[in-house]
Amino acid sequence: MRTPLIDNLQYANFSPRIFAQMREGGVDAVHVTIAYHESFREMVLNLERWNRWFEDHPDLIIRGTTSADVTRAQETNRTAIFFGFQNPSPIEDDIGLVEICHQLGIRFMQLTYNNQSLLATGCYEEEDTGLTRMGKQVVTEMNRVGMVVDMSHSAERSTLEAIEHSSRPIAITHANPHWWHAALRNKSDTVLSALTQAGGMLGFSMYPHHLAGGGACTLESFCAMIAEAARRYGAQNLGIGSDLCQDQPDSVVEWMRVGRWSKVIDYGEGSASNAGFPPMPSWFVDNRDFSNIRTGLTEQGLSTAEVDGIMGGNWHRFYSESFAPL
Amino acid sequence: MRTPLIDNLQYANFSPRIFAQMREGGVDAVHVTIAYHESFREMVLNLERWNRWFEDHPDLIIRGTTSADVTRAQETNRTAIFFGFQNPSPIEDDIGLVEICHQLGIRFMQLTYNNQSLLATGCYEEEDTGLTRMGKQVVTEMNRVGMVVDMSHSAERSTLEAIEHSSRPIAITHANPHWWHAALRNKSDTVLSALTQAGGMLGFSMYPHHLAGGGACTLESFCAMIAEAARRYGAQNLGIGSDLCQDQPDSVVEWMRVGRWSKVIDYGEGSASNAGFPPMPSWFVDNRDFSNIRTGLTEQGLSTAEVDGIMGGNWHRFYSESFAPL
Repeated sequence: MRTPLIDNLQYANFSPRIFAQMREGGVDAVHVTIAYHESFREMVLNLERWNRWFEDHPDLIIRGTTSADVTRAQETNRTAIFFGFQNPSPIEDDIGLVEICHQLGIRFMQLTYNNQSLLATGCYEEEDTGLTRMGKQVVTEMNRVGMVVDMSHSAERSTLEAIEHSSRPIAITHANPHWWHAALRNKSDTVLSALTQAGGMLGFSMYPHHLAGGGACTLESFCAMIAEAARRYGAQNLGIGSDLCQDQPDSVVEWMRVGRWSKVIDYGEGSASNAGFPPMPSWFVDNRDFSNIRTGLTEQGLSTAEVDGIMGGNWHRFYSESFAPL
Repeated sequence: MRTPLIDNLQYANFSPRIFAQMREGGVDAVHVTIAYHESFREMVLNLERWNRWFEDHPDLIIRGTTSADVTRAQETNRTAIFFGFQNPSPIEDDIGLVEICHQLGIRFMQLTYNNQSLLATGCYEEEDTGLTRMGKQVVTEMNRVGMVVDMSHSAERSTLEAIEHSSRPIAITHANPHWWHAALRNKSDTVLSALTQAGGMLGFSMYPHHLAGGGACTLESFCAMIAEAARRYGAQNLGIGSDLCQDQPDSVVEWMRVGRWSKVIDYGEGSASNAGFPPMPSWFVDNRDFSNIRTGLTEQGLSTAEVDGIMGGNWHRFYSESFAPL
C-alpha cells in the first residue's frame, strides 16, 4: 500500500462536486471542521448532514474514526472523512460531552477559536492566562478518550501549557511558522519547537492570510519554508492542513469570525476593505492540486520518504497513536 | 463458551451494588432503558452517567454495542450493558437522530410509550391509527442502521403494522401473553403469532402488573406460561425482559407514567390506592434470582437447549442479526 495522502484541515462548502475532486486528486483522508460556534445540539445537526452525505455518496466518501479507515478508503478508492471542532463550544460546560463527542466520531478539538474560551485563551485576546481550571481537566479527558488537542487558533502561553499538560502529543492542524510570515495566527519558533519535541504535529496552511505574500505566495516560497521547518523540527512532525474553504459564501467567514459572540463585525485576519474569503494561490485551488506541493517539496531536495511523510504518512502515523482510548 | 444469560429489559436505579448483583447472578448482558420522556439533549445526560459508571466500574460492566460484546463480557467476567429507549422522544421530530442515536450505542427503541407518539399509537389510547407517516419512515431508517423496533407499550394495530412494515424482525422486549393474564400491556395471541412468525422476539416480564396474580404469582404458573408459549410460538423466539425496576423511588414511576405530558396524575397499570412500584414476586427480586427461572423452566419439561435459549441464547442470536447496518 502506498503512503496515504491526507489533508488534515478543510472547511469547504462540501458537495458531491468537492468529494469527486478529492477522488480526482487522490486524497485518501480529510479532517473536516464541523463546528465553529455551535452548541452540542447544533453540532449534531452538522453530523446528521455528514451522515446523509455518507449514505448518498458511498462511492466517494466514508466516515473515518480510526487510522485503519484511511487504509480502507485507499483500498476502496474513497476518501475517509474525519471530524473536528475549531472551538470547544459543542462540549458547552460539560466535561462528559468530551466522551460523547468521541463516541460520535470527533477526533480533533481546538481549545479556543481566537477568543477566550472556557478552556484557554485564543490568539486574538490581549491577555493570555493559559489553561483554565476546566481546560486542564478537559485536556486530561481528551487524552483519556482519544481526542486530539488542537491549538491552531490559540495564544502562545495557552499553547505551551497545553503541550506541557497533555500526556499525549497534540497538534496545530493549520498554521505556518511566524518566522516565515508574521501573521497573528502563525506560530513562534518556541511553540513549534515545544510542539514537535513532544511528538506533536504541525499542519501547513494554504489559507492566504497565513502565506508570505498572501494569495501571491509562490509555491517555491511555501515549499522552501517547509524544507526549513523540516530542518528545524524534523520532517516526521510535519503535514498538510490546507484550511481549504472552497465554495463558501462570504456570509460563512462572518459566522466563523463573530458567531453570536459580538454585535460588531470583527474582520479577523481580513479587513474592512478585504472582508470576504481571500483568493487562493494559483497552485492550490482545490483537492486536485496536492501534486503541485509534492513536486515543490521534491524540488527543495527533500527525500521521497520525507515528502511521503509530509503529504500524509505522518498524519496517518499520528492518527494510529491518537484516536484510541488510553 | 456456555450460552450467555441475558436480561433484555431493566430499568433499575443502577448502582455499583446492582452491578455486583449482576455478577453474582452470572448475568452476561442487560438491555437497560435510558429514556422515557427525555429530549435528545436530556438523553445524552443519561448516556454520560453510564459512561461514568463504565469508567468507574470496569471490573463489573462494559458498554455493549454488538453481540460480540456479550462474549467479551463472558470471557472477562463482566456484564455488557446495551441501551434502549422506551419512547421515541429522544429522536424528537428528526429522522436523522435515529442514526446519531445508533452511533451513540442505542440498540432498541419503542415506537410508543403508552400514548400516541409521532410514530405510532400506545396501548393506553382509545383509538389506534397504526403507524404514522413518520413512523413508517423511521422503521425503515431503524432497519437500515441496525436499531431494533420494540413494541412493548404499543397498541395492537400499530404493533401488527410495525411487524408488517419492518424488513427485519422486531421485538416485544417486556410483556406477557394476554391469554395468561389479561392486562392491557400483555399481548394478544394474534400479535405474538405474527411477531414470532416474522422472526421477532418476545421477552417475558416479571413486572407484577404483567403477572397472573400480580406479586403473588407462582414460579410454576410463570414457567408453565412460558412452556405453553414455546409450544405456540417456538422456544427459539422467546427470552427474558424482566422489567426489573429495583431500588427506584415512587417518584420515578410517576415520571414514567406522566413525564411532562399531563398535569393530572395517571396511574397507568396501578391505581390511586396502589400508586407506587408493586412488590416483586418472591422468586425474582434482583439479578441473583435468574437461576430460579432456569429451574422452573426445566421442571416444565423444556429441554436444556430450549432453556438455554430462553435464558439468553435467543437474545444473543437476535443481537447478532439485528445491530449491524443493512
